[in-house]
Amino acid sequence: MTKIGIIGGTGPEGLGLAMRFAKASDKVTIGSRSAERAEEAARKVSETVPDAKVRGLMNAEAVEDAEVVFLTVPWDAHQGTLENLAEAIGDKILVDVVVPMLFDRGQPKAILVDEGSAAQQARALVPNAKVVSAFHHLDGTELQNVERPMQGDVMVCGDHKGAKKTVMELVEHVEYVRALDAGSLTNSRYLEEWTVLLLHLNRIHKAHTGVRITGI
Amino acid sequence: MTKIGIIGGTGPEGLGLAMRFAKASDKVTIGSRSAERAEEAARKVSETVPDAKVRGLMNAEAVEDAEVVFLTVPWDAHQGTLENLAEAIGDKILVDVVVPMLFDRGQPKAILVDEGSAAQQARALVPNAKVVSAFHHLDGTELQNVERPMQGDVMVCGDHKGAKKTVMELVEHVEYVRALDAGSLTNSRYLEEWTVLLLHLNRIHKAHTGVRITGI
Repeated sequence: MTKIGIIGGTGPEGLGLAMRFAKASDKVTIGSRSAERAEEAARKVSETVPDAKVRGLMNAEAVEDAEVVFLTVPWDAHQGTLENLAEAIGDKILVDVVVPMLFDRGQPKAILVDEGSAAQQARALVPNAKVVSAFHHLDGTELQNVERPMQGDVMVCGDHKGAKKTVMELVEHVEYVRALDAGSLTNSRYLEEWTVLLLHLNRIHKAHTGVRITGI
Repeated sequence: MTKIGIIGGTGPEGLGLAMRFAKASDKVTIGSRSAERAEEAARKVSETVPDAKVRGLMNAEAVEDAEVVFLTVPWDAHQGTLENLAEAIGDKILVDVVVPMLFDRGQPKAILVDEGSAAQQARALVPNAKVVSAFHHLDGTELQNVERPMQGDVMVCGDHKGAKKTVMELVEHVEYVRALDAGSLTNSRYLEEWTVLLLHLNRIHKAHTGVRITGI
């Protein structure tokens, strides 16, 4: 049982992760800038996972009680959210799931980040946090479909060995999903950018795609 | 039966593709800057695939007779090779397999390309060619292991519909491999960068990895 706080947990990815972790008996706090929306999201989790240990709070409060903090805000909110919550996050494990991207004439497009990747920006903004980059390639809609086994792998990268191990264990709280060590935090850029390709595949093939590594 | 010419076909990736296409009864010409090395590579293909229709020639000659031209040179040679061969390539289908990368203190690292990707640089240098980006994620060593079925998908992107269709058919000349339409040539950057992540996974897990898309 891990105490998980999800900053921006009302979006499809955060909500889906909340449901899967609740199903694995983790204690989940959904954070939002609006306590009302957070509570509404927590209700959705409870409806989907009847014995869920879940509640909805303001982002800072969701961070407070968590052992592991997830960040699932849109890219636009990445920097601002981390600046606001840096003190609350402190030296906790911070799992950055954010993908730097925009829509250019309706097409998803990766954005270059000065620090190299969203996760590296997070480390610059919250220098004491144990930043781990992971969970980019699990489709939000599929995650919310809790009765269906998830397919695919989750690549996990980061520079803090213990934190990476904890997050790899959390990955496998999502049934059937495999965690793969993907090296140092500088590799996050590749994980983040690949998500944009998956969004293109989703559109072209009208699908909810994920990724599986062959040969391991 | 497709007439395939492979520029820089003596490296592991080009050689592996030559073997797989030869096995599928395609007519393969391996190109090199050295006719001797090209002939040596062709001999290796013949030893591995006894009834192979394969020969080794200088790069420009390998392009000459080909219906579909593959480019499998190291990134350092990408621009120069295309400048030299632009006239020979003309308006043929050009399959760019090159990944812009370097080794930084022994670690593979993607390089940003002004044009957006290697494939987009190829289009700028050979404007009449029908450039298609594909085959990045099939491991060269595994390809050469012709008795073992390949695993994984090949994402194919490009802006010329007919050329993309031809290349997607060629992908499936490699037994068990699935071709997936990955949209326009601007998506090549994601395919190229992902290759660098696979190289990291290969090192971390001592493996020859590939990628399979789930949900399609």
